[in-house]
Amino acid sequence: MNEFVNKNFLNLNNNYVFSLVSQKVKDYENLTNKKAFNLGIGDTTLPLSKNLCRVMCEALKQEQNKNFHHGYPPETGYDFLKEQIANFYKQNLIDLNKNEIFISNGIGCDITNILNLFSNPTCVIQNPTYPAYFDSNTICGNNIILLDQNNFNPRNLDTTPKLIYICSPNNPTGLTMNYFELKEWVDYANKTKSIILFDSAYSCFVDKNYPKSIYEIEGAKTCAIEFASFSKFAGFTNLRCSFTIVPKQINIFDMNLNEMWQRRQCTFFNGVPFHIQKGAEFALTKLGYDECIKNVKYYKNNAKIIKNCLKNLNFDIISSSCSPYVWIKCKNNLSSWQTFDHLLYNHNIVSIPGVAFGNAGEGYFRLSGFANRKDILLATEQLTKKNG
Amino acid sequence: MNEFVNKNFLNLNNNYVFSLVSQKVKDYENLTNKKAFNLGIGDTTLPLSKNLCRVMCEALKQEQNKNFHHGYPPETGYDFLKEQIANFYKQNLIDLNKNEIFISNGIGCDITNILNLFSNPTCVIQNPTYPAYFDSNTICGNNIILLDQNNFNPRNLDTTPKLIYICSPNNPTGLTMNYFELKEWVDYANKTKSIILFDSAYSCFVDKNYPKSIYEIEGAKTCAIEFASFSKFAGFTNLRCSFTIVPKQINIFDMNLNEMWQRRQCTFFNGVPFHIQKGAEFALTKLGYDECIKNVKYYKNNAKIIKNCLKNLNFDIISSSCSPYVWIKCKNNLSSWQTFDHLLYNHNIVSIPGVAFGNAGEGYFRLSGFANRKDILLATEQLTKKNG
Repeated sequence: MNEFVNKNFLNLNNNYVFSLVSQKVKDYENLTNKKAFNLGIGDTTLPLSKNLCRVMCEALKQEQNKNFHHGYPPETGYDFLKEQIANFYKQNLIDLNKNEIFISNGIGCDITNILNLFSNPTCVIQNPTYPAYFDSNTICGNNIILLDQNNFNPRNLDTTPKLIYICSPNNPTGLTMNYFELKEWVDYANKTKSIILFDSAYSCFVDKNYPKSIYEIEGAKTCAIEFASFSKFAGFTNLRCSFTIVPKQINIFDMNLNEMWQRRQCTFFNGVPFHIQKGAEFALTKLGYDECIKNVKYYKNNAKIIKNCLKNLNFDIISSSCSPYVWIKCKNNLSSWQTFDHLLYNHNIVSIPGVAFGNAGEGYFRLSGFANRKDILLATEQLTKKNG
Repeated sequence: MNEFVNKNFLNLNNNYVFSLVSQKVKDYENLTNKKAFNLGIGDTTLPLSKNLCRVMCEALKQEQNKNFHHGYPPETGYDFLKEQIANFYKQNLIDLNKNEIFISNGIGCDITNILNLFSNPTCVIQNPTYPAYFDSNTICGNNIILLDQNNFNPRNLDTTPKLIYICSPNNPTGLTMNYFELKEWVDYANKTKSIILFDSAYSCFVDKNYPKSIYEIEGAKTCAIEFASFSKFAGFTNLRCSFTIVPKQINIFDMNLNEMWQRRQCTFFNGVPFHIQKGAEFALTKLGYDECIKNVKYYKNNAKIIKNCLKNLNFDIISSSCSPYVWIKCKNNLSSWQTFDHLLYNHNIVSIPGVAFGNAGEGYFRLSGFANRKDILLATEQLTKKNG
């Protein structure tokens, strides 16, 4: 009777890995009086491109003008941005109705809050993974199947999940699923009437021959929700603008997920500021896109430099070329944390131990192309010198 | 087995009142070729004050600068804003630790998402009320007790609720609870180990002799969560910045609500942009506060003009002086909608029918001081002329 508190919170792991990383780096820097090369970073680091910043500043400045001031934004976004996104997808031959596009303030928010639409679904999650999938399902008390990233295929499932989380290109592993791999999941979801939650946070890093959107896969419109963002593409990690695509055709029995998400957002969410949406709109124009993609290329080249260095040192690299992250097998049977300590104390390099992303990350570590070029060059030069 | 969809969505009312209002106004304006005076508005209308806008523009402009660019904001807010808020509360003799303050993007988001912390609590809600309390609890399948606003007192409860929603000054009624009324709820919550969710969205409109914050009430720190916002105070309805106070002392059995909300926000939320938080910080400086409070006074004076006019016409006014809204009893036994039609077609005035906020709103209507002064003067002059 009195137990009205959500006890599922007791089942959460202590999320100590990232704070332990910070603590260890602080200790090291205090001890050595050196500044470590931060190759662990999972956030954009380049400043906003100039025209993009100008567009947003101009829109924001208008808010002091009586005739241009905006009140509450529409909960699901302004039409101008939805239309811009629809046009952007059309270039990829994907037809979206603007009512299928929901502007929001982060994939992290939407891909967790989407659980409001479901009632104790069993879900399958890639292992290792972005921790929020796991934690949000734990908080909701849902049954979780962890499927090893290397065997992430419906043929390896013992139970039928109702929600299928796919992040491609993946964080942390940088693995990118091809058309055939995704098609197998889409067919499976349609057959079993389960729902794919497709996290395309890193889609701007995808090369030509891989799908950027789940809707490039035939049949996805009846089973997949896509979560996309301006964070990595336009450097919006601070500014917060994302969008979620819920196709009209997804029904569970007689309930329509698009209508449910519409209602959920209008109840639990108040929208994204006008000037931020103006910036997002601009990022998808020719001029804006070119500016943004320049930064994306910079990060990809960073990842390539890291990768080439480690390959030359005979490390086993897992990630594809479609990712800012480099996921690397530890050498000499060292654990994630042993490798972390080794890199920090012998090479002045901050990495992220793979276990931060789940037990299947043990024995791996992540380096990141989001670090600045100078740090990456110094770090790799040094690694090569000491190990070459 | 297959029923993994949240069927509670089927129990939601169709939220048609507000769209019906828009439709009726559109029809009227097309028919008459006149522009109606919009006194139904529930959103700020004055432009951002100049210095506030400048501060935010300057902060945003810095994002194109390598040395000042920000990545992911801290999920629960920047310390500078938390400290500013703590100082602001201190002026009211309320001591808050910065870890009790969670910056967010809207009361609407937090007061609905807070339900993640609970497991099917019974809740009590004022009737009439802001629809999101009701709808979010319906979506979560919680038991809802609606208690008439005029009898909103723990002595009138048959069942013990676990969550107590209090909005004071209230939307839509403009009723404001005094110290003794709130104290009775705080004592009740502490005695029954229930939680008060205090929505202080309209606290900037509160006069000296009423409490602005639930923490002015002795004992509130062990039972009450406060939801506050820059929306109405600083005209941030578009910009989205709010904060939620979860005191460290609130435990349910051995679980700490502050720690749970911290974990919830770090999992389901990605924070508020730097430049928006800089604006919010400025709004609480002497200069910023004075600018903002000028707008608040303008809206209050608007409400006063509406009130005086209607009093003179022998309408029964319910709202206190601490609100931008005027809640009025319909005359001549007209229903909310009949009054709406009458005001629109005979006086060119848009109102909100009280039923929009629940069945106890039937027989009432809401007018709003957020409308612009000119419209209010023309509308009231005309009402007086035709009825005086």
